[in-house]
Amino acid sequence: MPLSEFSLIQRFFTQQAVKNASTCLGIGDDCALLAIPNGYELAITTDTMVENVHFFKDTNPEQLGHKLLAVNLSDLASMGAKPLSVTLAITLPSVNEAWLSAFAKGFLTLAERYSVDLIGGDTTAGALTLTVQALGLVPRGRALTRSAAKVGDFIYLSGNIGDAGLGLKITQGYDCTQPDNALKQFNQPDPACDTGQMLIGVANACIDISDGLASDLGHILQQSHVGACLHWEELPLSDAVLSYIQDTGDWIMPLVAGDDYQLCFTVSPEKASLVPNHCQKIGIIEAQHGLRLNKSGIIQTLEVKGYEHFS
Amino acid sequence: MPLSEFSLIQRFFTQQAVKNASTCLGIGDDCALLAIPNGYELAITTDTMVENVHFFKDTNPEQLGHKLLAVNLSDLASMGAKPLSVTLAITLPSVNEAWLSAFAKGFLTLAERYSVDLIGGDTTAGALTLTVQALGLVPRGRALTRSAAKVGDFIYLSGNIGDAGLGLKITQGYDCTQPDNALKQFNQPDPACDTGQMLIGVANACIDISDGLASDLGHILQQSHVGACLHWEELPLSDAVLSYIQDTGDWIMPLVAGDDYQLCFTVSPEKASLVPNHCQKIGIIEAQHGLRLNKSGIIQTLEVKGYEHFS
Repeated sequence: MPLSEFSLIQRFFTQQAVKNASTCLGIGDDCALLAIPNGYELAITTDTMVENVHFFKDTNPEQLGHKLLAVNLSDLASMGAKPLSVTLAITLPSVNEAWLSAFAKGFLTLAERYSVDLIGGDTTAGALTLTVQALGLVPRGRALTRSAAKVGDFIYLSGNIGDAGLGLKITQGYDCTQPDNALKQFNQPDPACDTGQMLIGVANACIDISDGLASDLGHILQQSHVGACLHWEELPLSDAVLSYIQDTGDWIMPLVAGDDYQLCFTVSPEKASLVPNHCQKIGIIEAQHGLRLNKSGIIQTLEVKGYEHFS
Repeated sequence: MPLSEFSLIQRFFTQQAVKNASTCLGIGDDCALLAIPNGYELAITTDTMVENVHFFKDTNPEQLGHKLLAVNLSDLASMGAKPLSVTLAITLPSVNEAWLSAFAKGFLTLAERYSVDLIGGDTTAGALTLTVQALGLVPRGRALTRSAAKVGDFIYLSGNIGDAGLGLKITQGYDCTQPDNALKQFNQPDPACDTGQMLIGVANACIDISDGLASDLGHILQQSHVGACLHWEELPLSDAVLSYIQDTGDWIMPLVAGDDYQLCFTVSPEKASLVPNHCQKIGIIEAQHGLRLNKSGIIQTLEVKGYEHFS
């Protein structure tokens, strides 16, 4: 980490104090150092956001900083991991102090909410590209994976879907009478960190919905070698999304739109009483492969497809 | 990690087998999972390489894959950490199969040499930007930092300096009669992983030379609140670098050129006998701040400056 980059990170990304008990050494040396308590495994994830691909050029930098961290914390949540610390690699075309300051505010405010330390980074010149790697703790051998769904499991969502998709449509010009929550979900999603940790010992399989429910549940089905049937009437949808569907007829949107960052998980029926109250049962895991939707008694097959970067 | 990206990583970056005993879960879920043995801390570093900044557009992709991993392993080496695993975030303008295949070969060949597992990644569309995060193990409380140099310590290098700088000059047109080693050091540096681990319990402070000896030793001096004097005649220089200096008069090059990826470390005189034989003593830590060079009996002050991305 050259001096100038160290100074940039120091100037814009210094947190009030090291918050997390696991951080032995933070920013400022060749590596950071973390202590991992006995009985835990380390969960690691990385996600990149690229200008004009994942966000628009004029995206509010404070919201962008929040969202970049949120999507990584959401990956930790989907394994049931408690977030510990992150590194941040920023490639940017020039040093725009107002932009960096707002970006850092959004990033660090969310980090502090979950006692996440920024323990390292790299700042380079180039097209705007943001990569976070997030580290979390999960009780040894108990992480929630995509491959552990069992036939007969109930399928749950941690919250409403489709609001982020509606938010995107609003930014693209759709006229919505209640835009606030949809825009908030699209621009500043809240990672389901607490729910994820509550699901350890309760859920069998779990994933976060970054690419749409159909696509992400599809990963669970593929990796667990099972199928599923969802019930349209049980899907948790906000009034704004219901109005959008009534208005446009586009009922598939909440099933395929990305960026919701809710958790989708499966639970054996005998553990259903342990599922947190705010979660909603939406279907059941079946032996027959594929993803089906029961809508007003008619069962249809859903195609499993997410956003393709190079299609 | 959307399906298409997962497939890209699976197609090009699948290793023969999981090599590292710490890897509980590799690529394919929302997070990877690592077991950290008792008595160790986790060392974490991240480095980004950007086309036209860190490497040229026509850089050999196999060498690039090697170098991207090498610079990150070098950061682990400088803390005395044994490398465990890495994540790789690739942003690339399009899927060029020949390029990706060669890049992966360079990356994975070096990874396998050190039993490093590629445990996760993200593949996105955009300007060519490559970020690695590397994880390693270091005995608890014994990592080598920049801040632990003491007055009276001897200063060492793990190997020759200036060869990578000469390699850069050769690619820019300098006519060298013995170019092979210099180009190898510039394009495919070897991280000093083994030396770094041998220095645990021996060295006080340590850093890897990515931005030039003067700049990186400068970090040790600043963070340890000390100064240093180097002896020109003791610097380990290859015949090719000596010829270059004789030819051009540019004797400062090996002190300020980057990309050497040797370790520079300090050792108390009573532990000097424990320093590995291939390392070379080059100077001494002094109470007087600043970096000085004794060249043929004349002492001059060296400016401490590395590559500035945004100067």
